[in-house]
Amino acid sequence: MIRTQKRLQEPRRGKPVERKGRFLTVSGAPVKGLYGPGDTAGLDYDRDLGDPGRFPFTRGIHRTMYRGRLWTMRQFAGFGTAEETNARFRYLLSEGQTGLSVAFDLPTLMGYDADHPRARGEVGVEGVAVSSLADMETLFDGIPLDQVTTSMTINAPAIILFAMYLAVAEKQGVPLDRLSGTIQNDILKEYIAQNEWIFPPEPSMRLITDMFAYCSENVPCWNTISISGYHIREAGATALQELAFTLANGREYVRAGIAAGLDVDKFAPRLSFFFNSHNDLFEEVAKFRAARRIWARMMREEFGAKDPRSWMLRFHAQTAGCSLTAQQPYNNVVRTTVQALAAILGGAQSLHTNSLDEALALPTEETVRLALRTQQILAEESGVANTPDPLGGSYFVESLTNQMEEGVRQYFRRIDELGGVIPALEQGFFQREIAEAAYAYQQRVESGEQVVVGVNAHTVAEETPVSILRIGPEIEAKQRQRLARVRARRDEEQVRRALASVRHAAAGPGNLVPPVLEAVKAYATLGEIVDELRAVFGEYDEVRII
Amino acid sequence: MIRTQKRLQEPRRGKPVERKGRFLTVSGAPVKGLYGPGDTAGLDYDRDLGDPGRFPFTRGIHRTMYRGRLWTMRQFAGFGTAEETNARFRYLLSEGQTGLSVAFDLPTLMGYDADHPRARGEVGVEGVAVSSLADMETLFDGIPLDQVTTSMTINAPAIILFAMYLAVAEKQGVPLDRLSGTIQNDILKEYIAQNEWIFPPEPSMRLITDMFAYCSENVPCWNTISISGYHIREAGATALQELAFTLANGREYVRAGIAAGLDVDKFAPRLSFFFNSHNDLFEEVAKFRAARRIWARMMREEFGAKDPRSWMLRFHAQTAGCSLTAQQPYNNVVRTTVQALAAILGGAQSLHTNSLDEALALPTEETVRLALRTQQILAEESGVANTPDPLGGSYFVESLTNQMEEGVRQYFRRIDELGGVIPALEQGFFQREIAEAAYAYQQRVESGEQVVVGVNAHTVAEETPVSILRIGPEIEAKQRQRLARVRARRDEEQVRRALASVRHAAAGPGNLVPPVLEAVKAYATLGEIVDELRAVFGEYDEVRII
Repeated sequence: MIRTQKRLQEPRRGKPVERKGRFLTVSGAPVKGLYGPGDTAGLDYDRDLGDPGRFPFTRGIHRTMYRGRLWTMRQFAGFGTAEETNARFRYLLSEGQTGLSVAFDLPTLMGYDADHPRARGEVGVEGVAVSSLADMETLFDGIPLDQVTTSMTINAPAIILFAMYLAVAEKQGVPLDRLSGTIQNDILKEYIAQNEWIFPPEPSMRLITDMFAYCSENVPCWNTISISGYHIREAGATALQELAFTLANGREYVRAGIAAGLDVDKFAPRLSFFFNSHNDLFEEVAKFRAARRIWARMMREEFGAKDPRSWMLRFHAQTAGCSLTAQQPYNNVVRTTVQALAAILGGAQSLHTNSLDEALALPTEETVRLALRTQQILAEESGVANTPDPLGGSYFVESLTNQMEEGVRQYFRRIDELGGVIPALEQGFFQREIAEAAYAYQQRVESGEQVVVGVNAHTVAEETPVSILRIGPEIEAKQRQRLARVRARRDEEQVRRALASVRHAAAGPGNLVPPVLEAVKAYATLGEIVDELRAVFGEYDEVRII
Repeated sequence: MIRTQKRLQEPRRGKPVERKGRFLTVSGAPVKGLYGPGDTAGLDYDRDLGDPGRFPFTRGIHRTMYRGRLWTMRQFAGFGTAEETNARFRYLLSEGQTGLSVAFDLPTLMGYDADHPRARGEVGVEGVAVSSLADMETLFDGIPLDQVTTSMTINAPAIILFAMYLAVAEKQGVPLDRLSGTIQNDILKEYIAQNEWIFPPEPSMRLITDMFAYCSENVPCWNTISISGYHIREAGATALQELAFTLANGREYVRAGIAAGLDVDKFAPRLSFFFNSHNDLFEEVAKFRAARRIWARMMREEFGAKDPRSWMLRFHAQTAGCSLTAQQPYNNVVRTTVQALAAILGGAQSLHTNSLDEALALPTEETVRLALRTQQILAEESGVANTPDPLGGSYFVESLTNQMEEGVRQYFRRIDELGGVIPALEQGFFQREIAEAAYAYQQRVESGEQVVVGVNAHTVAEETPVSILRIGPEIEAKQRQRLARVRARRDEEQVRRALASVRHAAAGPGNLVPPVLEAVKAYATLGEIVDELRAVFGEYDEVRII
């Protein structure tokens, strides 16, 4: 029990003695026993790294990085009705948060109103319920939209929630060119990993390119998409898979935009990314650095983009929810600190840090504050924001960055051989790759090769109790009442006409944003608009992995 | 209130725009806006870095570092009587701690028994009370000394506590050459910063060199000293001052050992170091890397040491107690995580992570477990132990490392100009330097230039309550009773003879360890032995800084 480790004898010559077992990243990639100048000998600084703010942006997209401005501290939040979430937003802003991020509940994500039978039991549970413009108005009550940036995690029905946000801005008197923020709007990763789709790929891609086109003309500072690796990683992918599949999806969106007749430099500057920041500090930093280099090279070389802003990969990061444990929940503060540090050392533009109780429930005000304090301490006390890309030049980190780039190129070749992203996902390629990685990780945990503190090692019998925030059934009733009031007060004839226009536009070649905007302004509900689109587009059937 | 930051416009040419204010490390050293290949152009890999395990050991003292063996997880612990602390030791070992570290109470540190009038109110409060061998026996009850490594933080009366430890080993039947551990035994930093001295410098140095000599013959695996920057830093020094003053003290001990007639390669391999690991991640890593390079070069070049073990600077690190805040104590988990990471990336041999409530009280079992879990998560989940010196080659970190080395050389020159460490401290040089640094830091905090989260920014009105461990007055009564029993049962004539031998040896040139060992085995108390030494050596008077 109390035997301590003795250092193994190191022979003066020959292979140095190491502990038993393999040295792997959390993704299972082998790590060498030594990295030195030989590992970076092939690097050409100007070609492969470049100063921060210069192609290929390996060291960051801005010349000054956090000396110019800190990353945006943006906690993903949403629960109950729009009123509860509005109060949480105001709380977070008062505690020093610098951007908003909306979590919608499952019915909203799937395009169902709160009073739909399929919504039962899920209203307001894992996010805020937004069924009509009235909810969106409440959500941003007292929050001037020209003074915050807002991220909205919504995909299949993104166009509708985005239209509601535009309508709120209009009511607040905020011109659309003063709006900034992001809508997730990334349907490909839904087919690959997250499973919250409605329509088949082709019309889904059209909704996205319609938004590219609309925003490039009307909402120029809006990020039209957040191409997301987060959920791919949470589903069990490795860091490399997360990166490769996300960039492959990004490439697909660029192709779709060009195929829709858009000039690449008109829409590419507003593409943004969303990555997971997981446990393995250096693997994650390498992933973020490689992401920028690969994207910049691809945009310039493959797509001929001329505007430097089209080359820059900007990303939001969230610490890894899947890494948190219900056991000894305060251990999660340690994990989240390391993961947040990875995102910062990797040059993230914005960051969500998970609360320690997110493995158990919705975060409380206290735990979300501690999560925000984690970012504030890293920003203000740790010194890591003092200079861009502090790890640049490290033999180990540069070597991992090269490895990531090479691995992504290999995945790109395999995806191309399958005919591109949509054929590959229809053949279950991504799903199989992720499932295999998840299985391999699980095996390592079960064998004890991968230690998870508090789970397969350093367990304790009694757990520290943490107070938990729960959503009761009264929230669902409240939301249904709110929705009933909206339906009762609106002009039904106006709604009918607006919905007919949406259906008409969906069937034709025109841009869908303007008719959807008219429909939400008439207080047509989310579910009603989705029904119109579904009638034209149909529904997607899941690919089963054999 | 909810205005978010807008990125400053970056001009295409000219100086990039930065936020207002200076970019400084927590020590106040300026950080540049960009580090690139030019900053490391003068580095010669073999001369200045070397592979881990090779001179000058910048990248670590072992070829495999944590792939060979993880650092020792060693929580500093001690409170109440020896019984309470023995229970805490067993708890820590059962939770996965890999080494012991004893905190003694203030009376013990100052050489007073628990029943001395000056001990009143302090017995067992900030550490364990050890007044005689009987307490030391209880402290290690059920803990075989050949199976743990033990660190003891004791300085002025170090020789006595060390002798007690040897006596316990003898009673357990453990041969002295099987003992490993460390005794702090660093009196110079007491004069400089910590103020727990008894005797004047000259006899204090003789006690230390007596232990060097005794251990090199009899306890070959024991670290005879832990040359400590920790307290210098806690007193307000910068990272550079901590490093420079600690290495200067180390140089002084080496000179003293040589002056005492010892062969440098007989005692230098058992010198060890103890540093603070503070908030500024990269400054700390650079400090640790520079420490090894400076020490290796100095030992080889200045002192002509031939044994590579004499060149290797081995160190324990403790996260920065002074950085913790009583406000929002869970924020301290974040700070401690970053600081622990710095120690690990800097190649520490052992590590204490502070508990979140150490700014308020002695840590509870729960908080000390979380502190230990912090180390375990970094070791097992973060991937940072997979390869030695993962930051090696980083333009920023190598540049900071060079800066540290240059800064230390400048301080060495100034100390030499003052006649060496003892004359310098008698002139108040170190004390003034530290006071100036502490004042400058305090000014930055008061002006808000240095943010301390929860203190001068991001404050909250209501605090999360934490449960606190307090030492009651019954502990003092209990310890006095224990001591009275020891006095009642011992052979007074044997004690008298042994104490006379100690006084005789102190007045002569012989090694003091053997007579002190005889005295503790006769159950002479700490205070009695110190009185004998004081009678010969006298007491030190504090230097007042004008």
